[in-house]
Amino acid sequence: MSHTVEILSVGTELLLGNIANTDAQMLSQGLSALGLNVYWHTVVGDNPRRAREAVELARKRADIIITTGGLGPTCDDLTKNVLAEAFGRKLVFHEESAQRIRAVFERTGRTMTDNNLLQAMLPEGCTVLANDWGTAPGCAFESDGVHVIMLPGPPSECRPMFEYRAKPYLQALSEGVIASHTLKLFGIGESAVEARLRDEMNAMTNPTLAPYAKEGECELRVTAKAATEEEAQRLLQPTVEEVKGIFGHKVYGVDVSSLEQVMKDLLVEKGLTIGTAESCTGGLMAKRITDLPGASRVFRGGIVSYATEIKETVLGVPHDMLEEYGAVSAPVAKAMAEGARRVLACDIALSSTGVAGPDKDERGNEVGTMFVAIATAEGTYVRPLTLGARPVRARLRTQTAHHAFDLARRYLAGLPFED
Amino acid sequence: MSHTVEILSVGTELLLGNIANTDAQMLSQGLSALGLNVYWHTVVGDNPRRAREAVELARKRADIIITTGGLGPTCDDLTKNVLAEAFGRKLVFHEESAQRIRAVFERTGRTMTDNNLLQAMLPEGCTVLANDWGTAPGCAFESDGVHVIMLPGPPSECRPMFEYRAKPYLQALSEGVIASHTLKLFGIGESAVEARLRDEMNAMTNPTLAPYAKEGECELRVTAKAATEEEAQRLLQPTVEEVKGIFGHKVYGVDVSSLEQVMKDLLVEKGLTIGTAESCTGGLMAKRITDLPGASRVFRGGIVSYATEIKETVLGVPHDMLEEYGAVSAPVAKAMAEGARRVLACDIALSSTGVAGPDKDERGNEVGTMFVAIATAEGTYVRPLTLGARPVRARLRTQTAHHAFDLARRYLAGLPFED
Repeated sequence: MSHTVEILSVGTELLLGNIANTDAQMLSQGLSALGLNVYWHTVVGDNPRRAREAVELARKRADIIITTGGLGPTCDDLTKNVLAEAFGRKLVFHEESAQRIRAVFERTGRTMTDNNLLQAMLPEGCTVLANDWGTAPGCAFESDGVHVIMLPGPPSECRPMFEYRAKPYLQALSEGVIASHTLKLFGIGESAVEARLRDEMNAMTNPTLAPYAKEGECELRVTAKAATEEEAQRLLQPTVEEVKGIFGHKVYGVDVSSLEQVMKDLLVEKGLTIGTAESCTGGLMAKRITDLPGASRVFRGGIVSYATEIKETVLGVPHDMLEEYGAVSAPVAKAMAEGARRVLACDIALSSTGVAGPDKDERGNEVGTMFVAIATAEGTYVRPLTLGARPVRARLRTQTAHHAFDLARRYLAGLPFED
Repeated sequence: MSHTVEILSVGTELLLGNIANTDAQMLSQGLSALGLNVYWHTVVGDNPRRAREAVELARKRADIIITTGGLGPTCDDLTKNVLAEAFGRKLVFHEESAQRIRAVFERTGRTMTDNNLLQAMLPEGCTVLANDWGTAPGCAFESDGVHVIMLPGPPSECRPMFEYRAKPYLQALSEGVIASHTLKLFGIGESAVEARLRDEMNAMTNPTLAPYAKEGECELRVTAKAATEEEAQRLLQPTVEEVKGIFGHKVYGVDVSSLEQVMKDLLVEKGLTIGTAESCTGGLMAKRITDLPGASRVFRGGIVSYATEIKETVLGVPHDMLEEYGAVSAPVAKAMAEGARRVLACDIALSSTGVAGPDKDERGNEVGTMFVAIATAEGTYVRPLTLGARPVRARLRTQTAHHAFDLARRYLAGLPFED
């Protein structure tokens, strides 16, 4: 039997446009990957009457209802109350959840108010989805053939709660096994990937192939359905290999999270260390590396040489070079990387310099003119970039950091810097 | 009469999670500003049956339906066909729109196919909303007391089409104005704010007061409705002042975007520069400052001294101090800030050191143990933090950076560091 899903998001902040419904996007991706059909997204505010109305509609047109939001004390646990009532379940006190909530407040030294503890009231007989990323627990239950799963609204809680709590629950509902692999590509756009694979994609039914644009990268998800995990994997493998063959070194990994994760894993494997010297990316490269747990095994440190003078005083970029070529130039990118490698005493150093906007630099370099460099024991390589002024500042910086990490993972994997 | 709006978005790409529904966010913001109540967002795929079902629901519960998407040739103009049928309007050929479409294809040198011209078929008697940002025209009509406005889906078309086409149409319908102010608080949780204000909030009808949790901060939005902008502002002012009085220096701004923005504006105002020395935040502080356009006016640079040795070699933290107290300690936070102030030649330096997890440090400091410091011409101040191990790594780092920026904005505004 094929399941249909409705995502019901509760939150006045969505209806006021304070935030975009990124939870619904994240869930839709994850649910599609599980082979579940998402047919409706509905958003209502913190309003019990309309929330109830939405639930009554959803239970008629879907057999899985996933709610986000409306679980915290500020909305009186609206979602939980409405769903418990709609499905005729009493709310009962869940001691373990109460303990978790108390523990969070103790650890963080905040004062717990009574309404915080109301979060531990949960529908009778439900499966409690423990929230290790916030205070409000989620829950799941089945009534009259409809599965209800409630998740907290903040994306930093909703995402892991889906991944580690809702997904296992949903996998148990699905007959057969859905398996998927995600190929990550850098250096080619989603529309180019889509154009190249269009005929293959249209001809495929199992496995299926779907490209996603991701902040200047591209993901290709291959999904297969079969009776067993082994069989699904057997269906997936030829397609994964075929796609790798088509896109070559632009595929930087399968089922990996990011360029920097691939780079970090290679550094650990080879026992090498890395450091950064950043101008236009302003700390973003260091931040992204240190986002990774265990970064201290490979990351020595970074210099954000935002003012030109810091490039001289801290990184030792020659004054004459800065005068002659300007801070946004290939020689300076090279000298920054080499300086960082020396100052930070690391095996590999990455650098960035460029114009992130909103304005041209004082030498007339256009917004989007960037240089990234990698310095290693074997020498230094500079990649010039012309990213254009169209993307916003944040996108330009992200893209520039991607390129620096791409140089590092190519170097560490023994691949050419360009192809 | 108060209008209620439903935003109906049509597009399978939304249900697959390929994109987030940013159109709905943008429209919701714009509609709230017009004093219109958005009570529902609905998303359906490119499916005529479910789109029709959604329209039938929407016409019952809203008197303004705004659709996005489903207007182009790739979806067979699904939205237009469904709405025309639902409201009993024939589609008729609109010559002016056809000419516009032909002109776009001529200009871009693309080949026009017959189905491109179908976009010029529009509901009889509608107001045509000319699309100067793409090919598919929008339209608006009124039937049985319900206003229908159809806009194209791509955000680059939807936004200007709303701004320059739909808004004038809607303004004619709306009575009165809505105005709001957002107070930003740091150092107090959303539930504590909510508990403190619950009675006031329940008693208020105009203006209204609503708290939102925001990544370790809290926002309070005050909204008023009145016949004129001036009157709405007059209603808002006492509440804004009252809330400021209640939460004191924890209110860091009204209608401001972030702690770092407030800090940056104060730096510009006072003609001072800033720099950073980061350990646990690993570049996040520098990254957040340089996310702000024009950061180069105040930001000198940063040192990410992730490895302990870099704290010595680059920042000049004494070896003996590191031996005696360990890298995660108040003396080291102080020495890092002072070192950064010297090395980066800036007026104010911020530092962070702590355990972001996943594991305790080698001295047994628990995850969430953090120190932030500020060094200025007048001395150095250290704030110790115990954030607990429960929040995820990213949240701990964000929170730590918030605290450092909070020290800076308090210093720059002449406020006490703690109260």
